[in-house]
Amino acid sequence: MMKAEIITIGDELLIGQIVNSNQAYIAEKLNTIGISVERMTTVGDELNPVLAAFAEARSRTDVCIVTGGLGPTHDDITRDAVCTFFQSDLVSNLEIRAHVEALLKTRNIGWTPAHEHQTLLPRKAKLVPNPVGTAPGMLFDQDDKYFFVLPGVPYEMKEMIDATVIPYLSKKVKGSTIRHLTLRTSGIAESSLAHQLGDIDDILRGARLAFLPSSTGVRLRITALERTEATAEAKVRQVEQRIRAKVQKYIYGADEEELEEVVGKILKEKNLTIATAESCTGGLIADRITDISGSSAYFLEGHTVYSDASKVRILGIPEELIKTHGAVSKEVAEAMASGVRAISGADIGVSTTGIAGPTGGSLTKPVGLVWIGYSDKDTMLALKFNFGDNRRRTKERATQAALELVRRRLLRIE
Amino acid sequence: MMKAEIITIGDELLIGQIVNSNQAYIAEKLNTIGISVERMTTVGDELNPVLAAFAEARSRTDVCIVTGGLGPTHDDITRDAVCTFFQSDLVSNLEIRAHVEALLKTRNIGWTPAHEHQTLLPRKAKLVPNPVGTAPGMLFDQDDKYFFVLPGVPYEMKEMIDATVIPYLSKKVKGSTIRHLTLRTSGIAESSLAHQLGDIDDILRGARLAFLPSSTGVRLRITALERTEATAEAKVRQVEQRIRAKVQKYIYGADEEELEEVVGKILKEKNLTIATAESCTGGLIADRITDISGSSAYFLEGHTVYSDASKVRILGIPEELIKTHGAVSKEVAEAMASGVRAISGADIGVSTTGIAGPTGGSLTKPVGLVWIGYSDKDTMLALKFNFGDNRRRTKERATQAALELVRRRLLRIE
Repeated sequence: MMKAEIITIGDELLIGQIVNSNQAYIAEKLNTIGISVERMTTVGDELNPVLAAFAEARSRTDVCIVTGGLGPTHDDITRDAVCTFFQSDLVSNLEIRAHVEALLKTRNIGWTPAHEHQTLLPRKAKLVPNPVGTAPGMLFDQDDKYFFVLPGVPYEMKEMIDATVIPYLSKKVKGSTIRHLTLRTSGIAESSLAHQLGDIDDILRGARLAFLPSSTGVRLRITALERTEATAEAKVRQVEQRIRAKVQKYIYGADEEELEEVVGKILKEKNLTIATAESCTGGLIADRITDISGSSAYFLEGHTVYSDASKVRILGIPEELIKTHGAVSKEVAEAMASGVRAISGADIGVSTTGIAGPTGGSLTKPVGLVWIGYSDKDTMLALKFNFGDNRRRTKERATQAALELVRRRLLRIE
Repeated sequence: MMKAEIITIGDELLIGQIVNSNQAYIAEKLNTIGISVERMTTVGDELNPVLAAFAEARSRTDVCIVTGGLGPTHDDITRDAVCTFFQSDLVSNLEIRAHVEALLKTRNIGWTPAHEHQTLLPRKAKLVPNPVGTAPGMLFDQDDKYFFVLPGVPYEMKEMIDATVIPYLSKKVKGSTIRHLTLRTSGIAESSLAHQLGDIDDILRGARLAFLPSSTGVRLRITALERTEATAEAKVRQVEQRIRAKVQKYIYGADEEELEEVVGKILKEKNLTIATAESCTGGLIADRITDISGSSAYFLEGHTVYSDASKVRILGIPEELIKTHGAVSKEVAEAMASGVRAISGADIGVSTTGIAGPTGGSLTKPVGLVWIGYSDKDTMLALKFNFGDNRRRTKERATQAALELVRRRLLRIE
């Protein structure tokens, strides 16, 4: 398999001012054509660290993709570094000049010495055109090794990766194809998932599996590396089936699918509507549901009933019920879910009431305790959870659990 | 100056499945205590590349921060790599065991062999506690070099960086003192801010300034590097005063203060309550307000009135008004704000109605158009915004603008 390294250059990355999204973009694109990224390196705008990174990467791999430091200002040192590294001088390039002139004209910008500087290309490099900016890209194609240098501005870099780098490299790739599939789970811890899957080698049979936990669930990423696309696809699907056979009920979606999207699709298919009554989640369930374009087709309304008075007035919960059981109770969670269903006319009501913390807990009702209620025409129920003592995370976990409860009820998963 | 490298481990990074946000978080934190990050490296879940990265980084720098690959499953190889690298064996750690047992208990999870595995720590390492997860962190403190190993789950890593790594390292930094102050602005673009500040050298006089834009506003980070804490502090404060003299009205807070926290403080001080009526923001304003512990003292209730029917039924808006002006209009935004104030009995009502997109726009009401309404006992008003064509960003920007409108009205800022 062809191997690649990505080098990103820029002081703004090293001080943490911006998150490096270029790396992920390039890596994903290389992966889709079967090139394996082995390492990513970030260095600052200084000659020696850049030269060291070039030398290390080139000695290890077939493909290097370098981004950043190609602009017109004093701190852009990448082109000089490249000239030193490949022992090449700079020559004026007429194709770049014509492009930059045309670009400046459309943007009503005058020609400056900085632009003159931009038209120079190392003699040993091939031009990688930059259709949307003035800084040209370069390719050094020597000894079956490919060294691309691109600007760091994300939308310029992306255009050049898509238009030139990927088409060029896909012709050079021989031999193997890689295929990924991610299964998204909710409501089960990483360790329990591993436990329920059992003998992992028997499930994988040569494929690879990564556990990717987050505060809203664990994702399982299956990877197969095979000779052909068909066999890679088949292998991934076989592993998927063996995993689903063991933990199907926890899997709500695949790849980039979010739980709110899955719930939305089911609601749409079943022609059902939903409304929310939130206390401790504070509106986060409604926020997530409405992140989906077209959610107005099934989401009618949501209420953040933070005060007891609003629970009574808006949802029609008997004051007596709150007095007897407390606002954080099974009874009130159920009454909230059925109450919001009644006032909104929605088919499904979902509710949360809990103690987000960090204060307000007691021995019998500790911080992190959350009741999640559900109501439809046949059922009314509430489930008890404890999500720990971080306020924001409790909101996120309770929201995920509420959406997951809706999904399981809609699909009749026990 | 003390130098650092950051090593992030994980196949999911190399295939571009997730963007590496850990690097930027760690780099920013190290920077604030005067440690310069010289290089960032990412490698996959394989022993030899990990060992190579360890050796390279340790030979070049004083501080290494490693994240990722510390979970309980087979693809988590970092602890083994660390044991090989430092020639250390694993010993069972009672502190970790007690912590994991307590954590599992609160989450109602049973003890599995995977958890047993998590309680082992390399003999030569110090424990870096993980207050929010089961995977412990480690520190190898040898020959004035500091090698930290942390889990890759962002919220666990962040907790450990803040609670242990930064306090530990700041005691080791010698010679010069660095002081940062971040001023947070809302409602003004980066370029306008730069323009209004004018001659930047005259404001800074030797200090440094970084513009940090995000979807909710531009932060201004002032940095002074001086011999003593007192002079660094004084320099930062002088720059702060010169900046405030020019753009005070846009500055809502400093350092980690979020706008919902600032608004909450003002409401508490003035003994006022608030309620929300959201359409396009879908509950995000209520979600942010309730992220603040103690918000139940001033936040009464919030309504996500997504359907026209719910706007009429819940908030008492005349059907006629929606018919005449459309749901996305100044009139409806104002009626929503005063309506929610009336039904809730809150002192202040705030509302949003707009077109979050990507569909649903028209020539006169394009995607991104949002009206934000405000109502108190003296005033009723609505402001018009256009937040662009990304659904989530529109929700975030509209939420920030709504909170900022409340802040300015409460403080009588025109």
